[in-house]
Amino acid sequence: MPNVFYSYKVDSREAFFDSHEIQHFKVLRLKEGDRIQFTDGKGNLFKGKIKKISSDTAVVTIEEIQKKVRGWKEKIILCISSSKWQRERLLIEKAVELGVDEIVEFKSENSVIKDRKTEKLELLIRNSLKQSANLFKPTLRYFDEFQSFIQWIKAQNETNFILFDFSGKNIRDIVISKDNIGIIIGPEGGFSRNEIDIFDSLGVSKVKLGDRILRFETAALAGIIIISYFKNRL
Amino acid sequence: MPNVFYSYKVDSREAFFDSHEIQHFKVLRLKEGDRIQFTDGKGNLFKGKIKKISSDTAVVTIEEIQKKVRGWKEKIILCISSSKWQRERLLIEKAVELGVDEIVEFKSENSVIKDRKTEKLELLIRNSLKQSANLFKPTLRYFDEFQSFIQWIKAQNETNFILFDFSGKNIRDIVISKDNIGIIIGPEGGFSRNEIDIFDSLGVSKVKLGDRILRFETAALAGIIIISYFKNRL
Repeated sequence: MPNVFYSYKVDSREAFFDSHEIQHFKVLRLKEGDRIQFTDGKGNLFKGKIKKISSDTAVVTIEEIQKKVRGWKEKIILCISSSKWQRERLLIEKAVELGVDEIVEFKSENSVIKDRKTEKLELLIRNSLKQSANLFKPTLRYFDEFQSFIQWIKAQNETNFILFDFSGKNIRDIVISKDNIGIIIGPEGGFSRNEIDIFDSLGVSKVKLGDRILRFETAALAGIIIISYFKNRL
Repeated sequence: MPNVFYSYKVDSREAFFDSHEIQHFKVLRLKEGDRIQFTDGKGNLFKGKIKKISSDTAVVTIEEIQKKVRGWKEKIILCISSSKWQRERLLIEKAVELGVDEIVEFKSENSVIKDRKTEKLELLIRNSLKQSANLFKPTLRYFDEFQSFIQWIKAQNETNFILFDFSGKNIRDIVISKDNIGIIIGPEGGFSRNEIDIFDSLGVSKVKLGDRILRFETAALAGIIIISYFKNRL
């Protein structure tokens, strides 16, 4: 069950809910006149009364707004190469719980899946947001070509990108920077030699996490958690 | 596919494998004369040649032994209250990947499941060990009564137990201790008031992890990862 609902559109007096939210309304047997808590994913927590509810939409009258200020400036950006859905889903769910600011998915040579539906990713992000009462919905970007992802990286001047590799340095050396941190995670089969060379040429830092073999989602979570901790976000 | 196999019994010249391992042998179409890598879960990595293989057992002649020394003295002990298998399984799998030293499962008031089969837990631990090429198999303990778990805690004089609570202090204050660290994780529904009082009376420390709602397995993983990092295990 969600701890807060998600409204896709909020104006000065009312908030609007889509069919996916209505399904959750129904499970909880909510009806007109009932009060709910919800967020717009932009740092606001609202309380309101259901004014109108139909099979695929609802309108809620806003009664109270609490504005939360993000406690940090630098972003944590998770860049995932498309992988098996079961493990990727787990990673995204946890990343949202832990409060990452952006999620970027891209295809690489060893990605086992075809095109990922961004609607599926959006819904996953939204559900985790509601569950964890995270008021800041991460931005989602999807690149269906590796080259487009690389072009995007090149344009991110204020982000320090890292990837995990046994030959890398301690994550502590990265965390002290005042830049955003972008964690790049390969697919199950890892990146190809060619892709690693491209990352090298872009100055992506290699970071070591112990000497055991961590699954891609475990390494990613460890990275997010350690960085969050040092940035006083955990 | 496993990165190493697991032998339940190793003598000076040969190693023995049970039916579960034979299943993995078969998937990989291994036959007599083939060479494999395996561990005894006690820090040893072996190489050997399959001498004999039947439907439910195999014997391997040892050709090489590499002994790994544990890089730390203090243990990380994960104490989980029985929860939904799907999430608990995920947590145990990751805990083994990350190298926790002991796993303790116990029942508490809000545990949704009946008795947990320890064989199921053992197999999960073993599979994660093989996958992550972790050479140190965590000890497993199971308490089907909360009181037995409490008695066990009382006997652990060299362990600093913690649980996660919004009212708690920064995890950094705990990590600096030279004791073992025991992380106590409640079930989905949390601990009861009475259980919390018992933990308080035992001096279990409350630790805060950010201000978002983390699922029990996410909080546990964050705890394991941060502690491992500070103890130079990651």
